[in-house]
Amino acid sequence: MVVVMSPDATDEDVAHVVERVEGVGGEAFVSKGVVRTIIGLVGDIESFHHLNLRTLRGVADVHRISDPYKLVSRQHHSERSTVWVGPPGGQVPVGPDAFTFIAGPCAVETADQTFEAARMAQSAGATILRGGAFKPRTSPYAFQGLGVAGLEILAGVREATGMPVVTEIVDARDVDVVAEHADMLQIGTRNMANFGLLQAVGGCGKPVLLKRGMTATIEEWLMAAEYIAQRGNLDVVLCERGIRTFEPATRNTLDISAIPVVQATSHLPIIVDPSHAAGRKDLVVPLSRAAIAVGADGVIVDVHPDPETALCDGPQALLGSDLRALAQAVRRLPGAVGRVGAGDLATGRRSGS
Amino acid sequence: MVVVMSPDATDEDVAHVVERVEGVGGEAFVSKGVVRTIIGLVGDIESFHHLNLRTLRGVADVHRISDPYKLVSRQHHSERSTVWVGPPGGQVPVGPDAFTFIAGPCAVETADQTFEAARMAQSAGATILRGGAFKPRTSPYAFQGLGVAGLEILAGVREATGMPVVTEIVDARDVDVVAEHADMLQIGTRNMANFGLLQAVGGCGKPVLLKRGMTATIEEWLMAAEYIAQRGNLDVVLCERGIRTFEPATRNTLDISAIPVVQATSHLPIIVDPSHAAGRKDLVVPLSRAAIAVGADGVIVDVHPDPETALCDGPQALLGSDLRALAQAVRRLPGAVGRVGAGDLATGRRSGS
Amino acid sequence: MVVVMSPDATDEDVAHVVERVEGVGGEAFVSKGVVRTIIGLVGDIESFHHLNLRTLRGVADVHRISDPYKLVSRQHHSERSTVWVGPPGGQVPVGPDAFTFIAGPCAVETADQTFEAARMAQSAGATILRGGAFKPRTSPYAFQGLGVAGLEILAGVREATGMPVVTEIVDARDVDVVAEHADMLQIGTRNMANFGLLQAVGGCGKPVLLKRGMTATIEEWLMAAEYIAQRGNLDVVLCERGIRTFEPATRNTLDISAIPVVQATSHLPIIVDPSHAAGRKDLVVPLSRAAIAVGADGVIVDVHPDPETALCDGPQALLGSDLRALAQAVRRLPGAVGRVGAGDLATGRRSGS
Amino acid sequence: MVVVMSPDATDEDVAHVVERVEGVGGEAFVSKGVVRTIIGLVGDIESFHHLNLRTLRGVADVHRISDPYKLVSRQHHSERSTVWVGPPGGQVPVGPDAFTFIAGPCAVETADQTFEAARMAQSAGATILRGGAFKPRTSPYAFQGLGVAGLEILAGVREATGMPVVTEIVDARDVDVVAEHADMLQIGTRNMANFGLLQAVGGCGKPVLLKRGMTATIEEWLMAAEYIAQRGNLDVVLCERGIRTFEPATRNTLDISAIPVVQATSHLPIIVDPSHAAGRKDLVVPLSRAAIAVGADGVIVDVHPDPETALCDGPQALLGSDLRALAQAVRRLPGAVGRVGAGDLATGRRSGS
Repeated sequence: MVVVMSPDATDEDVAHVVERVEGVGGEAFVSKGVVRTIIGLVGDIESFHHLNLRTLRGVADVHRISDPYKLVSRQHHSERSTVWVGPPGGQVPVGPDAFTFIAGPCAVETADQTFEAARMAQSAGATILRGGAFKPRTSPYAFQGLGVAGLEILAGVREATGMPVVTEIVDARDVDVVAEHADMLQIGTRNMANFGLLQAVGGCGKPVLLKRGMTATIEEWLMAAEYIAQRGNLDVVLCERGIRTFEPATRNTLDISAIPVVQATSHLPIIVDPSHAAGRKDLVVPLSRAAIAVGADGVIVDVHPDPETALCDGPQALLGSDLRALAQAVRRLPGAVGRVGAGDLATGRRSGS
Repeated sequence: MVVVMSPDATDEDVAHVVERVEGVGGEAFVSKGVVRTIIGLVGDIESFHHLNLRTLRGVADVHRISDPYKLVSRQHHSERSTVWVGPPGGQVPVGPDAFTFIAGPCAVETADQTFEAARMAQSAGATILRGGAFKPRTSPYAFQGLGVAGLEILAGVREATGMPVVTEIVDARDVDVVAEHADMLQIGTRNMANFGLLQAVGGCGKPVLLKRGMTATIEEWLMAAEYIAQRGNLDVVLCERGIRTFEPATRNTLDISAIPVVQATSHLPIIVDPSHAAGRKDLVVPLSRAAIAVGADGVIVDVHPDPETALCDGPQALLGSDLRALAQAVRRLPGAVGRVGAGDLATGRRSGS
Repeated sequence: MVVVMSPDATDEDVAHVVERVEGVGGEAFVSKGVVRTIIGLVGDIESFHHLNLRTLRGVADVHRISDPYKLVSRQHHSERSTVWVGPPGGQVPVGPDAFTFIAGPCAVETADQTFEAARMAQSAGATILRGGAFKPRTSPYAFQGLGVAGLEILAGVREATGMPVVTEIVDARDVDVVAEHADMLQIGTRNMANFGLLQAVGGCGKPVLLKRGMTATIEEWLMAAEYIAQRGNLDVVLCERGIRTFEPATRNTLDISAIPVVQATSHLPIIVDPSHAAGRKDLVVPLSRAAIAVGADGVIVDVHPDPETALCDGPQALLGSDLRALAQAVRRLPGAVGRVGAGDLATGRRSGS
Repeated sequence: MVVVMSPDATDEDVAHVVERVEGVGGEAFVSKGVVRTIIGLVGDIESFHHLNLRTLRGVADVHRISDPYKLVSRQHHSERSTVWVGPPGGQVPVGPDAFTFIAGPCAVETADQTFEAARMAQSAGATILRGGAFKPRTSPYAFQGLGVAGLEILAGVREATGMPVVTEIVDARDVDVVAEHADMLQIGTRNMANFGLLQAVGGCGKPVLLKRGMTATIEEWLMAAEYIAQRGNLDVVLCERGIRTFEPATRNTLDISAIPVVQATSHLPIIVDPSHAAGRKDLVVPLSRAAIAVGADGVIVDVHPDPETALCDGPQALLGSDLRALAQAVRRLPGAVGRVGAGDLATGRRSGS
């Protein structure tokens, strides 16, 4: 931490800062410049936060230097992690040694529609099924999902296809029922900073897919992952799904740079959701290709057997030739950038654990 | 709703859109242009949403025309509302015929600190006390608030000062205990799109202070208010607290234009939080002046008897000469822009209701 | 300047940074932390920039501490400046001891329209006339202004009304002709980073109105002012006119906080353009009130005798009751916030200089 | 164009809109809804703009439907264009049938440094040399480029290497001298809306590389290209270089979605600049891979023989193993996504034209 004094700070002001830092067991290194003095702090950063250094007389600014997250940081855990999703004997890896393709309908509407979408997904090479039973919607008048009935449909389709299931959770009170039916719990973009929910999934015993808040910085996103990790759950997969910018041509702007940035600072796996980022079907395939090429650990996309009748986000669901193009990209492109492809996932399964 | 066809759409494509619209009981008016055809839809907008018009062949774009919110709209409720906060006999109005000054500590730390801050606030003219018992913090390692013990402190200070209390709620499971101790429940910026929480406070029987999501559009904010209203609670006060932009000089950018924009479209009262918008003490007084001048129905600010030791947001808490300058602005400026000032609030209290 | 080393930096890496800093005559103070080392630099910041410290092995980050602008900074010029606009004997001040009201048509269309708009402006209390002869337009198919013919109309209206004229310049090749006809040259939002144009007006001998780039940070804006000042022209008035954000309800978001932020760091006067920020007529009066209350040194607004036929930005031009409301605010509100009002400007004119 | 009337608009208000539209030769189709009336306009959109429909009584909103650009649109020119850069006999294509690799130093500093950087670039597979002689810098105290001396160095290196040269132009007065020395003129991000400069390069007879304004929407960017095209120059290559967002981890956010979005609406080629988008050397290779995979027509990157001594943007310049990784990606990845690679460019050269 570095404290920058204002040009008119007095020697007493500087001494007061030093005294307070030393009072909580820290060390303070003073560098007197021609115009300004800066003070470098060494010690426990949490104790410095309580000093409210910005309120002290003569202090112009305080810069934090080190990362505020610990458990999800690569600093003390340099190897990138793999998260295994699914029941013993049928686990699918998400991490640096695989490329994982997750697909399914935005919302579970009926057993038939979900089963049909799962079959489409599986034929295209997907190994994890996505599907929403609880839907957070901007309008109270929009379809909010089937709830527990939707979870039961998903569990049935998992039984039939062998695909592990990831589904969204929107309320801390639903953790038990969702964890019972699903293999992975998804925190959606609107709940990334819902700290009670983060803590609840931190104790659920299942892996978590943590979507980036559409207006969260990468640091805030990693802090949200830290909330989950702090409750003992390190099986967190991050999902970049676009950020809010001034550009209206896409629903959000896919922050493709976030993938290498996260991989440089955190050991957690990171995947990309091109469907929700763009909100446009015609961009899903090119953005999936970009995600693979930039080094993402997987993609998650919407498929629907009949987008015209979908109750949620129909305009972005893939089918037909688009889905075939995506299947081909997922099969071939990871190898072209030096990564094990989705086609090799079967052999990548961890036996019996 | 207006459907814009792409230049290469065929007559069949147009006919298919018309047919689907009429299939749900709507009317479709076709305007054939030189390059494009547009179709104006008349009828129940919710039924049109289910048609997924964007997925139909030949459709280039769909524009929504009317507002998506109903209960909070000024369209069928042209008079601006007043929300009354506090117990019978001690209610304070927030609305067009008053200017309400809310102040208190960011976080409740001790009974003494809270009582001291309340006295400072009251001396400066504040009529509602703010104070946080449950604190949503970006870092799991930061002070998270005293919880129920904090609520009890607030209730005690209310007893001593006669000031109604507003406090934040962060978890739907806490609605009963918070509603029991406080006079108004605050939804913070990070929870504006926590729809379960919005629905929970919709049934709590107390007024709600709904802060704008720091990256929410005004329309999304009003949709969040609609969630609360839909559960039967129309006593919602909106609070503009800054939006996230590229400008680093302030923590967020206070969207001062949002006040007249909201007042033109919704009947709900709207106040301003300059402390959290700026994150800088030196901007609180000028921004409060701007809020009064633009026509806001109130301000809510942080005060703390000793910012240097505050456990939360110390750098933005007011005291001393700044607080006196704010008190003076709140006393004089509302009248200068044609509004009843905080000084007249006592006589504005609704008796016995 | 502070150099932050990465956790795995070696002692040699640190020594290399120190050596390079000392090689250009600077001093380097090393603070060794538990996890990281930080190095505080003291000396000539420009010479440090050439070191490319970020490229050195072991360097994680470099923080600049002091402001990058000098001539426009308040650091060595603590008193706020007043800029005088107009010919000797008829100068109008813009600065801390006045509140200046600038108004006129967005674009000069005809002599009649300009004269009529000037009369409206003057009746409402405006003391400087605005009007565009060269219009930068997003579309090459839109009206681009009358050019020199427009400048001549403005000069004629100035003659008739006695109001000094401010008009936009968009091309460095036009500096002489614009400076000949106008009393103040405006740099528009799209040209704030057109460095050649900034340098050209730096030598023109007339005051400059520098609008903020709609996506410029305050620091970049002050750097643009520094470009003008560096060529010897310190008569620069800044104009906040809204920044680009995600909020679609207004054309841009007026950054009202920018006024006190600028006034704390620069001695230059700063005014507000509510017409272009909002792009909506109904917000001009409330935003002008907010500008006065926050402490701006003036406002600049569009007026047009017949907005329905305006060739540019008709929807935001004031007339009738709106203009009367604005006139009243400009007359009364500056006094209510402790400032000399527009009504006192006549006596504020500097005689004969 | 669609005009949306407000709920309280009268029949007279609607009739007045219709009358004005018909007055300029347009047709107006009225759709009366339960709450609102909408009016679809058919005819010449430019003539409608002059009507200032938004200012008419009863008008709530006006939606533009068709694209505002014509010459650069794919609507009447469905085949994607190829732009040829370089002198007859040595032309390099940029377009759908090639993948073009452009590299060189950010700034031309000396003949040796430029020649050395060009050799590095060429060894890595680059076929066009970039290098800045005129540098637009945020600070007036930063290195501004060598000017004409820099152009002469570039011309010399072109002679020696056979690589066509692209260089930035910042002032309309320099068009002739730059066009004389360079094969392609670059408009930088800060000048994208410098309409005088756009018009000047529209008449220069050389291809133009038009960078996206860091805060420009895609539509504004295409309008800027339209300015150039309107002056008769259709040899425009677009360059996505990152947009300004709230994310601080990268200098700007590379808008990777912009590539397929532009390709769907405009026939112009589009390339990507990962160096300036990220501002970080470690992201250049992954972002280049993403650019290739998403379907970009080329990349432009900074290389420097000694980044530690670079006078401009040293931290983002490639060398050594990074440059080899980029060379490999450029050689192999275009083929993997179904595109002709850089390695085949030689045979792609247009003979004798």
